[in-house]
Amino acid sequence: MEKLYRATIQYDGGAYYGFQRQQAGPPERPTIQAELEQALARLAGGPIRVIGAGRTDTGVHALGQVIGFTMDWPARHGPDALRRALNANLPRDIVATDVAEAPPGFHPRFDARRRTYEYYVLNAPVRQPLLRGRAWHVGNEHAAPLDVERMNVAAALLIGTQDFATFGRAPVGENTVRTVSGSQWSVTSGQWSAGRMLVYRISAEAFLYRMVRSVVGSLKAVGSGEWSVDRFAEALAARERKQSATLAPAHGLYLVSVEYRD
Amino acid sequence: MEKLYRATIQYDGGAYYGFQRQQAGPPERPTIQAELEQALARLAGGPIRVIGAGRTDTGVHALGQVIGFTMDWPARHGPDALRRALNANLPRDIVATDVAEAPPGFHPRFDARRRTYEYYVLNAPVRQPLLRGRAWHVGNEHAAPLDVERMNVAAALLIGTQDFATFGRAPVGENTVRTVSGSQWSVTSGQWSAGRMLVYRISAEAFLYRMVRSVVGSLKAVGSGEWSVDRFAEALAARERKQSATLAPAHGLYLVSVEYRD
Repeated sequence: MEKLYRATIQYDGGAYYGFQRQQAGPPERPTIQAELEQALARLAGGPIRVIGAGRTDTGVHALGQVIGFTMDWPARHGPDALRRALNANLPRDIVATDVAEAPPGFHPRFDARRRTYEYYVLNAPVRQPLLRGRAWHVGNEHAAPLDVERMNVAAALLIGTQDFATFGRAPVGENTVRTVSGSQWSVTSGQWSAGRMLVYRISAEAFLYRMVRSVVGSLKAVGSGEWSVDRFAEALAARERKQSATLAPAHGLYLVSVEYRD
Repeated sequence: MEKLYRATIQYDGGAYYGFQRQQAGPPERPTIQAELEQALARLAGGPIRVIGAGRTDTGVHALGQVIGFTMDWPARHGPDALRRALNANLPRDIVATDVAEAPPGFHPRFDARRRTYEYYVLNAPVRQPLLRGRAWHVGNEHAAPLDVERMNVAAALLIGTQDFATFGRAPVGENTVRTVSGSQWSVTSGQWSAGRMLVYRISAEAFLYRMVRSVVGSLKAVGSGEWSVDRFAEALAARERKQSATLAPAHGLYLVSVEYRD
């Protein structure tokens, strides 16, 4: 009997053209969705359609992407056996950490109430090979360290319900107003690195396209002294895409969690 | 004028056949030493011979490998400019974090007084894509967590000057006695992972070939309950290579630092 399932997915996005399956004809570019659908189709013996909570860009990673799919999986085996079978059929850079039956009508994207992303910045004079593809390297021997206090003053301006048109594009038919519930930088000591690692954590009910990378790029301009906090506030108030600073690269970004009203 | 330089090197060993250049004829397999020598040769306009403190195996990483080389580098540019020029010529998975003039007669291998390695074990039921190639994944949903206290009781038995023939082979002309000055497991929370990360740190004046991976494999047998601590002690006392447990994989191992009497 067909049932609706919900799964939590981790991936190293480095080898993929983002989450969403590409429709642009063969040869198909590798995406997370396509890999998941292929692995599930092998188990089901027929096509399976996967829906994701967030359409992460090319190169973006996930620690807690959430997907939904309908499948006829033998009840006696249970969802844990489905997770093991799925993982045995996925490439090494994608894994399901959890599979469970979903409540009726569950939709991973429309039902999500809060999404959290983290962005990692290695703020160090020299690049670090073991963090390649994992953090944005900002710094050189002449640059002062990024000013995290200033970045946090600017980051706090994002909290609340506002028009974020400066920092991203809305899907067709939606406006650019979003509600940000958390926005903060912290300093951690990176694993496998002597460098200074800054982590930006931002939560919202939903995000605009590229919003986190755009916000991080502009906050980095504040941290380096290129922008004042006032300049950041003006950019936000302008509601114009061209007012934002350069987009931060994809490989520092992680979809950390998606929360639902349960 | 030719001068002797000393440099600290970090690398992601995943793409290399270890540190040491392979002599087995073309096509040459990529090694860290060969990459460093090629980059320096480009700067010098002629061949440069690099000597490393430790001959890390295929796939082993380094945060603090030390190398020495003799080179004619314009004195007015200084060793910092040499580091920048070297890094501009190295692939993205190798970097020099420090270059300095070395004292006369400096030899990175023979002069080293203490080497420290770390070994990372991801002890979690499910593999984690973002730690692939960075930590040994040990565990499944049926296995109990590794018993770190037991592992530390066994790890402490390694400290002191002993014959470590069980855990490795000596270079030609040397015996298998070594002096271990530190040997301890700790638990950390891994970055980009919800899993439990165990870190083993071991220091010695010098190591036998494959010694750290052999020790970690046997300590893991203690942690999983496959071996008793007594069995570990007997294996150590036996001084026979075949008494050790399976070698831990290379991709969890990091050469962290090499210290000198300065």
